[in-house]
Amino acid sequence: MPNLIITNIRPHGGAETSITIKSGRIAAIGGPAEPGLKVFDGHGLLAIPGLVEAHAHLDKTLYGMPWYVNKVGPALLDKIDNERASKRTLGIDAHRQSARQVALTVGHGTTHIRTHVDVDTECGVTSIEGVMATKAAHADHVDMQIVAFPQSGLLRRPGTLELMDTAMRLGADAVGGIDPCSMDRDPKGHLDAVFGLAQRHGKGVDIHLHEPGEMGAFSMDLIIERAKALGMRGQSVVISHAFCLGMPDVAAVDRLLADLAAAEIAILTLGTPSRPVPPLLRARAAGVVVGTGSDGIRDTWGPYGDADILERAKILGMRNNLRHDTEVEQALDVCTHGGAKMMGISDYGIAIGKPADLVLLPGSCLTEAVVSRPVDRITFKRGRITARNGAAAFQVP
Amino acid sequence: MPNLIITNIRPHGGAETSITIKSGRIAAIGGPAEPGLKVFDGHGLLAIPGLVEAHAHLDKTLYGMPWYVNKVGPALLDKIDNERASKRTLGIDAHRQSARQVALTVGHGTTHIRTHVDVDTECGVTSIEGVMATKAAHADHVDMQIVAFPQSGLLRRPGTLELMDTAMRLGADAVGGIDPCSMDRDPKGHLDAVFGLAQRHGKGVDIHLHEPGEMGAFSMDLIIERAKALGMRGQSVVISHAFCLGMPDVAAVDRLLADLAAAEIAILTLGTPSRPVPPLLRARAAGVVVGTGSDGIRDTWGPYGDADILERAKILGMRNNLRHDTEVEQALDVCTHGGAKMMGISDYGIAIGKPADLVLLPGSCLTEAVVSRPVDRITFKRGRITARNGAAAFQVP
Repeated sequence: MPNLIITNIRPHGGAETSITIKSGRIAAIGGPAEPGLKVFDGHGLLAIPGLVEAHAHLDKTLYGMPWYVNKVGPALLDKIDNERASKRTLGIDAHRQSARQVALTVGHGTTHIRTHVDVDTECGVTSIEGVMATKAAHADHVDMQIVAFPQSGLLRRPGTLELMDTAMRLGADAVGGIDPCSMDRDPKGHLDAVFGLAQRHGKGVDIHLHEPGEMGAFSMDLIIERAKALGMRGQSVVISHAFCLGMPDVAAVDRLLADLAAAEIAILTLGTPSRPVPPLLRARAAGVVVGTGSDGIRDTWGPYGDADILERAKILGMRNNLRHDTEVEQALDVCTHGGAKMMGISDYGIAIGKPADLVLLPGSCLTEAVVSRPVDRITFKRGRITARNGAAAFQVP
Repeated sequence: MPNLIITNIRPHGGAETSITIKSGRIAAIGGPAEPGLKVFDGHGLLAIPGLVEAHAHLDKTLYGMPWYVNKVGPALLDKIDNERASKRTLGIDAHRQSARQVALTVGHGTTHIRTHVDVDTECGVTSIEGVMATKAAHADHVDMQIVAFPQSGLLRRPGTLELMDTAMRLGADAVGGIDPCSMDRDPKGHLDAVFGLAQRHGKGVDIHLHEPGEMGAFSMDLIIERAKALGMRGQSVVISHAFCLGMPDVAAVDRLLADLAAAEIAILTLGTPSRPVPPLLRARAAGVVVGTGSDGIRDTWGPYGDADILERAKILGMRNNLRHDTEVEQALDVCTHGGAKMMGISDYGIAIGKPADLVLLPGSCLTEAVVSRPVDRITFKRGRITARNGAAAFQVP
């Protein structure tokens, strides 16, 4: 494992100092360089903890494949049915494609990824197996969590629940769910199944909740009730997207935020520009842990995204109208500590004893780094360089 | 003036062809190269018309100055008052700063800029004079229109109207206005003054309308009434931002869009992620001309923006939930032909006889170019290269 000292860097935009790394972990911050230790000169760059991609869909990006001309219908089920068919017709190989997205993601400075991976009656658990192979192959480059994700519904397609159980036995890290009302048309049945799987396998849950307004708030309440009843604290329950928290009824939103905070349920937001989204600062002020991610990038759903989590800080800032430097720094914190906490990772951060997962990047301050999106970043995973200048330091298919 | 042939390019993503340029204008599309003509090999790049920055504030960016730590108060007047004071305390020189933003903007592929320039009782018309000097200095690099802009209000600060008149006599291209209800608290007085100036100087108007919902719709109706009464057709009236068109009442929005189309009034939208915005496709389907721009970048209002109009196509696409390739192409069209039409520029486009204002850029198709934001673009203004790889081919202070 690497031993070195990184000199002349500014952790979190503070004063210039050095970080000594022993066996891939931070052994000292500041102080003189030990004789004989390898020196990496940071030349005054900023240093932040590794970026956290807390919501990806690695198994189904089309990145690196021929351009896909999108003509998919407008409904959610149009997109889901089209995607299930496209996996076969386009040959979307979960192992190959997830490896490509890992390289793209790490290339921008990410050291931790949570990915939802499709489980359905057509692909079975082959996508889970493909992404698990990628996770193993890139264990030195990124820490990965896999959520078994019933994209096509859990109850409406018989056999899916059994496949989800298989996915968990194969080693998935959390049980996924999706839109308990609008997808399966049976919120009680859907959530009992999701939480039942989680209990059986001793894992957390991470539920896609696109449902807007009062319907989403109802589903959110059902999730909160189950998390409390089962004693699932400490962010072991995550609600992704949580668009209902963007509804106009501020009092209702504040009540939900208070309940989420009390139940220690985390949320994940992308700052989706076309949808109502959770109010970032208000959620954090209420004590709710907030992470962020890329969601699907360049897939059969849409052409956007390049898996740059630093860019996501900018999108969160623009979506939430964050203008002060201290506010933009909060958006960046969501991309680092927020995501780590959401994923239940305590072994994280620029502190003695933590893994040396770092990004060095130019900028006079953190906010300038967020809005300038510098290409010339240097990423360390456990003290080893995994990416420079926007490109991973390793090869993928 | 340049004579050359650009070979192996794909205009608008179509089949590979060549463009012959004589005296800076497009003389032929396709056909054999004339003997002796200088050849520029496009190596299969896409070709689009020059990008159009149809709403900038060149006079007050802080780009290239020391980082500004933003702590400004939340109200609109906080920002306006802070900015007026900051021009003096920070030394924001309109000539120097506008030249810097011209280089940044052209560097990304822009060939036409409309900029609003502050006129108020503190800076007088010095910002107008500074930007006019930039316009003259960079006439070979970009075509520029200057809107005299009463940022601090027109009636509420006595003396401003006379200064606006002076700005128009100095050669400003259009009369600006801002929020007739909420800023000057006198919509009739404000709009009569704006349209009066326009009539006196024989110019068009371009009014910032941030007012949301029914208040904005009321102001919009007052603008439409005046445009019709004065016979100001052909996009000589522009409404910038037009947030009221993002209000939930679809029937009211459709009525306004129909009236705007009938009156030949154009709108400008940034796809602002934090605000309601005009529905892009519905506006265009209704026959309304739509342009886009960067608005203020890196200024005392906020830290965002890099004046990349291709990036703006992506923001418009994400904000309006455009997923089909044909939809993203419409967002790109807003960044080229839409802006040109909004600015009243008919001498534009990839067609015989038009100025050779072109951007060459990589991508298998237009949508891929929009979502990938390639750095390696080549920009031609009247047949001369003005930018490559994200940097202007000319120097600024």
